[in-house]
Amino acid sequence: MIIILRENPNMSQLQYLISWLEGHGLEVHRADSEGRPMLGLVGDTSKLDCDLILSMDIVEDIKHIKEPFKSANRKFHPQDSVIDCGGVLLGSGHFQIIAGPCSVESEEQITDIALAVKASGANILRGGAFKPRTSPYAFQGLRDQGIQLLLKAKAVTGMPIISEIMEVSQLSLFNDVDIIQVGARNMQNFELLKELGHSNKPILLKRGLSSTLQELLMSAEYIMAGGNFNVILCERGIRTFEPYTRNTLDISAIPALKTLTHLPVVIDPSHAAGIARMVPPLSLAAVAAGADGLMIEVHNDPARALCDGPQSLTPEQFDRLAASVEQARPYAYSYGENL
Amino acid sequence: MIIILRENPNMSQLQYLISWLEGHGLEVHRADSEGRPMLGLVGDTSKLDCDLILSMDIVEDIKHIKEPFKSANRKFHPQDSVIDCGGVLLGSGHFQIIAGPCSVESEEQITDIALAVKASGANILRGGAFKPRTSPYAFQGLRDQGIQLLLKAKAVTGMPIISEIMEVSQLSLFNDVDIIQVGARNMQNFELLKELGHSNKPILLKRGLSSTLQELLMSAEYIMAGGNFNVILCERGIRTFEPYTRNTLDISAIPALKTLTHLPVVIDPSHAAGIARMVPPLSLAAVAAGADGLMIEVHNDPARALCDGPQSLTPEQFDRLAASVEQARPYAYSYGENL
Amino acid sequence: MIIILRENPNMSQLQYLISWLEGHGLEVHRADSEGRPMLGLVGDTSKLDCDLILSMDIVEDIKHIKEPFKSANRKFHPQDSVIDCGGVLLGSGHFQIIAGPCSVESEEQITDIALAVKASGANILRGGAFKPRTSPYAFQGLRDQGIQLLLKAKAVTGMPIISEIMEVSQLSLFNDVDIIQVGARNMQNFELLKELGHSNKPILLKRGLSSTLQELLMSAEYIMAGGNFNVILCERGIRTFEPYTRNTLDISAIPALKTLTHLPVVIDPSHAAGIARMVPPLSLAAVAAGADGLMIEVHNDPARALCDGPQSLTPEQFDRLAASVEQARPYAYSYGENL
Amino acid sequence: MIIILRENPNMSQLQYLISWLEGHGLEVHRADSEGRPMLGLVGDTSKLDCDLILSMDIVEDIKHIKEPFKSANRKFHPQDSVIDCGGVLLGSGHFQIIAGPCSVESEEQITDIALAVKASGANILRGGAFKPRTSPYAFQGLRDQGIQLLLKAKAVTGMPIISEIMEVSQLSLFNDVDIIQVGARNMQNFELLKELGHSNKPILLKRGLSSTLQELLMSAEYIMAGGNFNVILCERGIRTFEPYTRNTLDISAIPALKTLTHLPVVIDPSHAAGIARMVPPLSLAAVAAGADGLMIEVHNDPARALCDGPQSLTPEQFDRLAASVEQARPYAYSYGENL
Repeated sequence: MIIILRENPNMSQLQYLISWLEGHGLEVHRADSEGRPMLGLVGDTSKLDCDLILSMDIVEDIKHIKEPFKSANRKFHPQDSVIDCGGVLLGSGHFQIIAGPCSVESEEQITDIALAVKASGANILRGGAFKPRTSPYAFQGLRDQGIQLLLKAKAVTGMPIISEIMEVSQLSLFNDVDIIQVGARNMQNFELLKELGHSNKPILLKRGLSSTLQELLMSAEYIMAGGNFNVILCERGIRTFEPYTRNTLDISAIPALKTLTHLPVVIDPSHAAGIARMVPPLSLAAVAAGADGLMIEVHNDPARALCDGPQSLTPEQFDRLAASVEQARPYAYSYGENL
Repeated sequence: MIIILRENPNMSQLQYLISWLEGHGLEVHRADSEGRPMLGLVGDTSKLDCDLILSMDIVEDIKHIKEPFKSANRKFHPQDSVIDCGGVLLGSGHFQIIAGPCSVESEEQITDIALAVKASGANILRGGAFKPRTSPYAFQGLRDQGIQLLLKAKAVTGMPIISEIMEVSQLSLFNDVDIIQVGARNMQNFELLKELGHSNKPILLKRGLSSTLQELLMSAEYIMAGGNFNVILCERGIRTFEPYTRNTLDISAIPALKTLTHLPVVIDPSHAAGIARMVPPLSLAAVAAGADGLMIEVHNDPARALCDGPQSLTPEQFDRLAASVEQARPYAYSYGENL
Repeated sequence: MIIILRENPNMSQLQYLISWLEGHGLEVHRADSEGRPMLGLVGDTSKLDCDLILSMDIVEDIKHIKEPFKSANRKFHPQDSVIDCGGVLLGSGHFQIIAGPCSVESEEQITDIALAVKASGANILRGGAFKPRTSPYAFQGLRDQGIQLLLKAKAVTGMPIISEIMEVSQLSLFNDVDIIQVGARNMQNFELLKELGHSNKPILLKRGLSSTLQELLMSAEYIMAGGNFNVILCERGIRTFEPYTRNTLDISAIPALKTLTHLPVVIDPSHAAGIARMVPPLSLAAVAAGADGLMIEVHNDPARALCDGPQSLTPEQFDRLAASVEQARPYAYSYGENL
Repeated sequence: MIIILRENPNMSQLQYLISWLEGHGLEVHRADSEGRPMLGLVGDTSKLDCDLILSMDIVEDIKHIKEPFKSANRKFHPQDSVIDCGGVLLGSGHFQIIAGPCSVESEEQITDIALAVKASGANILRGGAFKPRTSPYAFQGLRDQGIQLLLKAKAVTGMPIISEIMEVSQLSLFNDVDIIQVGARNMQNFELLKELGHSNKPILLKRGLSSTLQELLMSAEYIMAGGNFNVILCERGIRTFEPYTRNTLDISAIPALKTLTHLPVVIDPSHAAGIARMVPPLSLAAVAAGADGLMIEVHNDPARALCDGPQSLTPEQFDRLAASVEQARPYAYSYGENL
């Protein structure tokens, strides 16, 4: 950590600061630049209260040299992590497609879709039981019953399942769910993250709508600090000023996260764009940039002949996409030697 | 609600849609514009699944005519709400300053600050016990003990107190807290909002860092839909590209919210700017624009002589600010006749 | 165009509005929805002053049914455009890589890089002569002389060249430049766009840092309205809250623009990311999503052995990237049948 | 300037860098922090190519200690600037209201509004002649003729006038215009800024829609570097995710700019909000926060009885606002002793 001081600092305050830092067991190296000292610190600075230092009159800025995330940091864990998701491996060359409907609606619906996406090459089944909805008057999901229907589809197909948790008290319902999803709106629900840190289940952590990658990694760190290293990161679009798509898929998150962390990176193009027609080109882009997996919404409702969900693919569209992905994967960017 | 169709829609699909809408008890009025029909709906559209309609091939867009929030809507509740905060009224001309430290640190600290800010004119005491921190390694607040210390300061000064809740399971600790704060990161923690809707305590709901005002009002609606109408809205800065301040205070939120809702609006300039020196001009701006209250961080730590918190005022600075606010209030914008 | 009125509009004002619209030669169709009329207009609405209509007391909103861009609109020009760039075709299956240094520095520099990138497969040479710099004290480019050096490199290699214009008065210097670039900061320099509309040269128009795609297309429309249809669109990253990359490459711009317009779409991953290491994965993503071309910064300066430009590839890195792109192109998403 | 190096840098590259810096006449002070050296530079670093340094393998980051703007910097010019605008002073306690219509439409319109706003207390007349419009098909202003009409209104009322320039070649038309406005879209039209630097007229420079305050000051610096110190800064709203207002007025720009620069700061609440009803509370907020002036749109069109411009005040509304501002000014925040 480097502390940059204001011009011509009060010398007694500077001496006080240096003593205070040394009192925390740090070596303090001083250099000057254009009339102002700066202090280079050597030692364990993780316990320092940076806000306190920044609040001192003589301090202008602090420059962190080390990233604040440790367990998620590739520097301390150079090998890609591989996460065992109910028997299906994800990460470090194990590429997987997670597919399924936005919401679980009925046993027939979830089982039919599961069978269809499995036949097309998906290995993990998604389905929402608890639905975070902006309006209290909107459908909130089948909740407990939705989880039960997912478990039936798992029994029929043998696919591992993933579903979203919204609150600590729901945790017991997820005993037989293979991957627990934390949604974008809960990325900084720190009490929930802490609790998931005491589980040993894989957690798919979605990036918040206007969160930075470092904030995403700090939220992963909350889970990992509790002992659960089975974290999968998911980019699902960020808020920008472009109204054509619901959110803007940050494709650069793939190479950035590959550098910063060893955790696998999954892309959700369905929620990012909110437009079914854009899911195939965005999926191919994510594969090309080196993503470890895709999360795709697939809907199948013959009873509603006019509809196929504004962002969901039909099973036929998904089948074509899965085949294209399979063909394109050998030409994807490989980070192996480039990190 | 108006449904706008694509050019030259398939006629049998259009007939299907109209029948389906009529089957939901709606009158359907049709008009044409530039070769495409549009449908005006009359009746209760609140139960319609808009996503489903939008997903139909022949539908281009839906135009909502009514705001999706009802209990918070000024149209159905023209009078300003007044919230009783442990005996102190807020809203509809009752202007209040909430003041106190960011975190509760000790009995002496919180009591001393409480006495000081009360003497300067603050009527409600703030203090953080549960602290949402980006890093799992940072100080997480005194938690239960922090609430106890706040209650002691309340006993000594007679001031109502406000503190932040982070998780449903903490609710029982807030029995004697007068106002429960929901932080910006939890603005869309819908399960927490639902639970607070079953309480009858005043809830101060902070706007999320990149939330729209409608999203804020929909979150208020979650609380109100459960029966708790004691909601206070708080603007505390939004994320923009300007790095000079930590966040950007959206001063326009005051006139916008005054039009949209009857709920009181409190401004937190301390968190918005993150710079103590900017708190006084921003506070005066908020008062001038017609805010119902201010929430100001005040810190007092004689043991740390060099420090006063990067965004906190000293008691002396707060005293001067409170006096300026008092002088400026008669010249503030009044919405009385202009809504 | 649809005009949505406020609830219970004043009837004489409504009659005035309808007469006024009919006076503009429009048929007015009226429908009602939830107690408020809406007006569907049939006829040429392009001359209506929407701001004026919106300012009427009884009008709540206007819903545009047709996009405001015409010449750039795929609806009126379904076939992909092909732009002849000094003998090299771009668009509609003609994929090209534009490569070269950020700034032209010397004859040797620009010629050496030109020869290198040509050998690797680039067909168009880029090089900045006029440099838009945030600071007036920073190097502003070699200006006129930079254009001369580019022309020498063109003479030696036979490659068409592209360079950025900053001001109308510079236009005469671009007589022998094959493609004129309009930079992101000048995307809404409307007087410049108008002037370029009277040229017949290909214009590469970069999207502004926080511009929407519709704004980009409206700026293309400025050029096309003057008669110059040789417009190439370029996505080069938008401003978001993510600090890891300089800007965020909006990969969704490719499928979105492919739907909206017939103009070719080129991606500039070098400026988007600002990090050389990220250029290869982002380039492959752009190819996979169906871009018509790439614009890549390549630098080669043996005299500055330590440096290769934070976002520039070395010729060797570029050579490897060009080979990867060549291999991946057959597996790219094809819009042919999907628009 | 401080250069922060990567961990365990290559020693010969480090020696090369230090020699290179010393070759530029700089003293280099070295300190170490957590296994990596940092270099503090003493001397004139303004000519260093920071991009070049950043591109070196061993360099992680550069920390600038001095702001990159000099002429605009309050540090080197502690006294508030006062700008003489055709006889009317602005800045350093001289508060002025600029008022007038968005576009000049006719002699009668501009003269009538001028007389009205003058009677209410405005001292400077605004009116657009050249209009930057997103669409090439929209009204582009009366252009030359608009300037002539403004000059007639100036002759009748004696008020100094301000109008927007869009292109260098228009400059000769502004000979008798008292203040030249540079619009938000041209804030980084550097060639235009350079040219205005050779004028001696007051320039009102509007902040770009997603520009930072430092970028605004760097654009002011372009004008000042040419010798023209008569620059007035104008905040007119920035792009955010809030759709209720057209843009978001950044009220914090006032205290931030007051600290950073000696130039006067004018607030344009009309364009920021885009809603006439919000102009009065935002104006009072701007006054309270210590703005040096307001720029208000006023429209008066008896022939269009239904309309008063979505963001324009009527002369009657403006008269009431000007009176409120007059009353509130004594209670505004004063920066005198607090910078």
